[in-house]
Amino acid sequence: MDEQLEFLREIDKLKNVIRKTPLIDNYRKENSAEHSWHLAMYALILSDSSDQEIDINRVIRMLLIHDIVEIDAGDHPIHESTENENQEALEIEAANRIFGILPDSQGGDLIKLWREFEEGVSNDAAFAKSLDRMQPLIHNIETDGGTWAEANVTESQVNDRYGPTISSGSTGLWGKAKVMVKNHFA
Amino acid sequence: MDEQLEFLREIDKLKNVIRKTPLIDNYRKENSAEHSWHLAMYALILSDSSDQEIDINRVIRMLLIHDIVEIDAGDHPIHESTENENQEALEIEAANRIFGILPDSQGGDLIKLWREFEEGVSNDAAFAKSLDRMQPLIHNIETDGGTWAEANVTESQVNDRYGPTISSGSTGLWGKAKVMVKNHFA
Repeated sequence: MDEQLEFLREIDKLKNVIRKTPLIDNYRKENSAEHSWHLAMYALILSDSSDQEIDINRVIRMLLIHDIVEIDAGDHPIHESTENENQEALEIEAANRIFGILPDSQGGDLIKLWREFEEGVSNDAAFAKSLDRMQPLIHNIETDGGTWAEANVTESQVNDRYGPTISSGSTGLWGKAKVMVKNHFA
Repeated sequence: MDEQLEFLREIDKLKNVIRKTPLIDNYRKENSAEHSWHLAMYALILSDSSDQEIDINRVIRMLLIHDIVEIDAGDHPIHESTENENQEALEIEAANRIFGILPDSQGGDLIKLWREFEEGVSNDAAFAKSLDRMQPLIHNIETDGGTWAEANVTESQVNDRYGPTISSGSTGLWGKAKVMVKNHFA
């Protein structure tokens, strides 16, 4: 139990990883811990919107842990062109260090779950990634453009950067999102 | 889906409900959304520590939603003597309004789950409440007393206010916590 409590103390640091996305009231930027809570709620509420058959409990777990590597590796917003080529290596190292605090089999299971999310291939991961792309889209629209306005992102760039990921998990969600995006840029 | 997305926008407000508990780095107070994420992680990691048989997926859901009523009813710290007698009524009203944004059957299920948590009687609720009491105890110890130091809370008051709730879900967790509390006050 000591290792488990040490891990739970360590991940408190995720509350200080600041994302680019604003809160809906536009008063401050979102942190990755509260973002992870919000996404777990997206999964709980929207579970019926997945095109494929999913295990919603696994999707919720995936979303609870999906950003923990950012404690070491930082957040990497999709609209920044300065892509760090070592990012993948950094994140794997972070996963090994942080989940490695846990007892072996528990840590190993979470590393596997995180890798499944990153790969985005399984039904559960595709739906999780779809929600992870949907939520900031809604926040940007609610804040007069949010990170799109900051980075001069166009409607067609939004469609290119959000559409494939959202629709690969849920064509219904992307149908809604597409109309919202169109109205926003109109 | 429109009602579901409206609910997911509404609960963004939980990120602005500030608790008394400090983050472990003591740089700021915790908000109720990131707290809810942290507790869901406590459940995921410590599921084997429950004394009773539990459905860990229900416990995680309970903890994800347990503080949503605070959007309307505010946070009520255990060390404050000014107890609001209307608090229960306020929280029920909040639950009806906020979960009421959802389609009927989905909203009704979440109100039931929240009431089960509040009652704290079922195995799942007892374990969820045990974790909800354990996490701030750890944060207080990590920050040289946190809310205990602020409110001049004594060792025996800590034992009285945390012990029964933590041990009713997990005697193992309370065994650990008791030693941490003793060392803290020594």
